[in-house]
Amino acid sequence: MLGYGMTNQSTDFETKLDRLAAIAVRHGVNLQPGQELLINAPVTAVDLVRAVARHAYRAGARNVLPQFADQELSRIQLENGPDASFDYAPAWRFEAVEKAIAGGAALLSIAGANPNLLAGCDPAKIARMQTAQAMAARGLSALVGGFAVNWSIIPFADPAWARAVFPNAAPEAAVSLLWDAIFAATRTDVADPAANWRDHAASLAARTAMLNEKRFSALHFSGPGTDLHVGLLPGHVWIGGAADSRTGIRCLPNIPTEEVFTMPHRDQVSGTVRASKPLSYAGTLIEGIEVRFESGRIVQADARTGTDVFRNLIATDEGASRLGEVALVPDASPISQSGLLFQNTLFDENAASHIAIGRALAVNAPGGRTEGLEGANNSLIHVDWMIGSAEIDVEGIRSDGVAEPVMRQGAFV
Amino acid sequence: MLGYGMTNQSTDFETKLDRLAAIAVRHGVNLQPGQELLINAPVTAVDLVRAVARHAYRAGARNVLPQFADQELSRIQLENGPDASFDYAPAWRFEAVEKAIAGGAALLSIAGANPNLLAGCDPAKIARMQTAQAMAARGLSALVGGFAVNWSIIPFADPAWARAVFPNAAPEAAVSLLWDAIFAATRTDVADPAANWRDHAASLAARTAMLNEKRFSALHFSGPGTDLHVGLLPGHVWIGGAADSRTGIRCLPNIPTEEVFTMPHRDQVSGTVRASKPLSYAGTLIEGIEVRFESGRIVQADARTGTDVFRNLIATDEGASRLGEVALVPDASPISQSGLLFQNTLFDENAASHIAIGRALAVNAPGGRTEGLEGANNSLIHVDWMIGSAEIDVEGIRSDGVAEPVMRQGAFV
Repeated sequence: MLGYGMTNQSTDFETKLDRLAAIAVRHGVNLQPGQELLINAPVTAVDLVRAVARHAYRAGARNVLPQFADQELSRIQLENGPDASFDYAPAWRFEAVEKAIAGGAALLSIAGANPNLLAGCDPAKIARMQTAQAMAARGLSALVGGFAVNWSIIPFADPAWARAVFPNAAPEAAVSLLWDAIFAATRTDVADPAANWRDHAASLAARTAMLNEKRFSALHFSGPGTDLHVGLLPGHVWIGGAADSRTGIRCLPNIPTEEVFTMPHRDQVSGTVRASKPLSYAGTLIEGIEVRFESGRIVQADARTGTDVFRNLIATDEGASRLGEVALVPDASPISQSGLLFQNTLFDENAASHIAIGRALAVNAPGGRTEGLEGANNSLIHVDWMIGSAEIDVEGIRSDGVAEPVMRQGAFV
Repeated sequence: MLGYGMTNQSTDFETKLDRLAAIAVRHGVNLQPGQELLINAPVTAVDLVRAVARHAYRAGARNVLPQFADQELSRIQLENGPDASFDYAPAWRFEAVEKAIAGGAALLSIAGANPNLLAGCDPAKIARMQTAQAMAARGLSALVGGFAVNWSIIPFADPAWARAVFPNAAPEAAVSLLWDAIFAATRTDVADPAANWRDHAASLAARTAMLNEKRFSALHFSGPGTDLHVGLLPGHVWIGGAADSRTGIRCLPNIPTEEVFTMPHRDQVSGTVRASKPLSYAGTLIEGIEVRFESGRIVQADARTGTDVFRNLIATDEGASRLGEVALVPDASPISQSGLLFQNTLFDENAASHIAIGRALAVNAPGGRTEGLEGANNSLIHVDWMIGSAEIDVEGIRSDGVAEPVMRQGAFV
C-alpha cells in the first residue's frame, strides 16, 4: 500500500471521497429537500466539504454553510493568550447555531483531531478552556443530544491525525493509509454502500431490540483489571445505528458506528475498571486509565500518561465523575479487527465496549427526555472511553438477580 | 524574483508574514487588551490567521475567532443548488456577528478573492445570491460602515488570485510575486513599518484637512471618455487613512490605503465616465465600463465583458444606480506605480481615483450619521470602481462656481 501509484490513487481516491460525501448526506444526515446544512470541519478538510456541498445541493439543500475551524489555534491561545482568555468562550457563536437548528438546519461534523495537539501544554489551562467551551455550548449540546434535528459525524484523514496513527510511515503515506482505514470503516469501499448501510443498521436494530426485551437491571464487566457493576436506569432504552430526530428524520449520527448503548443509573456503578485503549481528549493522549467507582462516583483515578488532564476532566462538575452511557461493541467489529489504534473516539468507541463519563443522553431515556429523570446523570461533559476487548466478559443481571451471559471474550453470546 | 531560493524565501517570507500580521493587529485593528477579535478569512489563509492570532493574544485578546470561508462553495452552489437556494442567505450568521460587535469585538477581514471565480456562471443567479447575501448582512454592514467597532481589511495572496494577476508565471512563482507586491503595498517591506504607517497616515490626514477646508460644492473629472460632474453633499466630510470607531479606538480600516474619500449628493451627478481599470465583482471581471449619469442616476451602462453582471448590480435597488462615495488617489500611489492590475478592490481602489455606487458611508456625513440625511444615498450595495489615471484631471467647484484645479494628469496640484 505504501507503493500506491499517485495517478491511480487520485482517481480512486476522489471516487471514494465522493462516495463518503454521498453517504454522509444521504444516510448520515439524511438531508431533506429545502433543509439548511451546517458543517463543522477542520480547514484541512476543505475537499471533503466541497464534495459534501455538491451532494447536499443536489439533494435540494436550501443552503450549505461550513464552519471551518483550525485546531492549531487552541495551542496558539494556550501559548500566547492572557490568563483571562482561558475562562472565556463566545456564547453568541453557539447561540447562532441554536437559532439555525430552531429553523430546521441539519448538522454534519467532520472529525479528524490531532490526538497530540496540546501535548506539553498546561493541563490546568486546558481544563479551563474546555470548561468555558462546554459552558458556552451547553444549550447547543442539549439540542444535539436530544436530536432536535438530524445530524451526523464523519471522519476525515487530517495529516496530524494520520501521523499519530501511523508514526512510522512517511507523511503522505500515513494520510493514504488512514484514508484506506476510513473508507473501510465507513463502508465506502463496498460494492453497494447504500445496501450495506441498510443491512448494518438492521443488524444493530435487531441487537437493540433483543437487549430492550431483556430489561436487565445491570451489566457486569469482568476481565484483567476490570470487575465493574453498571446498574441500568429503570426504563432505559438501548439505541444503535440509526436515530430519529424530533422532527421525524431518521439519521445515522455516527459514521462509522458499531455500538449499541444505553443509560446507566448515576448512583449504581461500583467496582474497578481498566481502560482497554488510550483516550484522546483535548489534544492529549491519556494512557492506562484505571478507575474505581463507589455508589456511581469515581473515587480513585490513575493513568500512565495524561493523569492530570484526566483528573481535571472528571472534576469538571459533580456529574463528570459519574457515568452517562454504557455501550457494547463486539471485538469482531471491523474497526477492532483492523488492529489499528485510532486515538479518535469516533473510531475507538466502535472498536470496543465502552463507558462515558458525564451527561446521559436523552435518546436512552424512557420518553426521550432526561429533565427531572431520577438516576439520569447530568454534566457539562460527555466523554467515552474504552473498556472492552477480547478478554472481557459481560453479563446481564436480570431483575430476579440471575446473571445471563451477554458477551464472552468480547463476542456477543 | 522567479529564481528566488526556497530556503531564503521561506525564512524571509515568514518574517514578512509575521510583520503583516503585527501591522494588522497593532495598526489595522489596533486591538485593545481584553477585546475579542473576529477574523473573516479564506481557508487558504490559515497561516496568516495563525500569525494574526499569535499577535492578537500577545496584545491581550480575550478571544480570537476566525470565521473561515471557502469561496469555491459559491460556484458549487451555482452549479448544483436548487433554484430556491439562490434567494436565501442565513441571517442568523450575521446577527451573531452583530451580537459580538455589541459585546465590543473587533473585526479583521483577510481579502484574497479569485477574480474569475464565477466566470461563466449565470449572471441572474449570481445577482440573486448577491442580493440575498446583502439583505442578510444589512444590519452588520451598517454597524461596520458606521464604525461601531474598530476594524480592518488586509490582503492575502490566494493562489487563484495570484494566477489571475500573474497569468504567465508558474503557480508557485505567481503566489511569490503577489506576496512581494502585497508586502510592498502594505509597507511591510520597509525598515520601520510602524513609523512608516504613522507618517503615511499623517500625510493622508493633511490631505483630508486641506479638502475639508476647501468646502467644494462639486468635483469635475475630465479625460478620455470621461466628463463627469459629481456634486458633493453640503457638510460632506473627507476621510483618509485612519478612522475612529464609535468606541473611541483609532484604526486603519484598509491596509493598504492611499485614498481620501467623501460623500457625493445622490441627485447631483451628471455626465459620462469611463472606468480606468476592470472591476472584479462577484467572481466576475467587468471590463471597459462606460456609464452616463443624469440627475444622479445611471441612465446608460455598457461594458466590454461582464455587462450583465454590471447591469444586474446597478439594478439591485434604487440606490444601486447612484453614487455613495467619491475618492481621490494620485497616480503616484505606489500601488499604481507597481504597474500591476490586481483585479481586487482593496488594491485597485488605492491605485486610482474612484467612485462607488450604492450606500453612502456614515463617516463622510456631517455628524457621522446618514439616517434621514437629505442627499445621502442608501442601498444594499457599496461597490467601488476606478475612474482615475495619469490622463484624468480633477477640478474642485467652489460654492461661487469658480473651478480650482485639484489634480492634473493624476497628480495632486
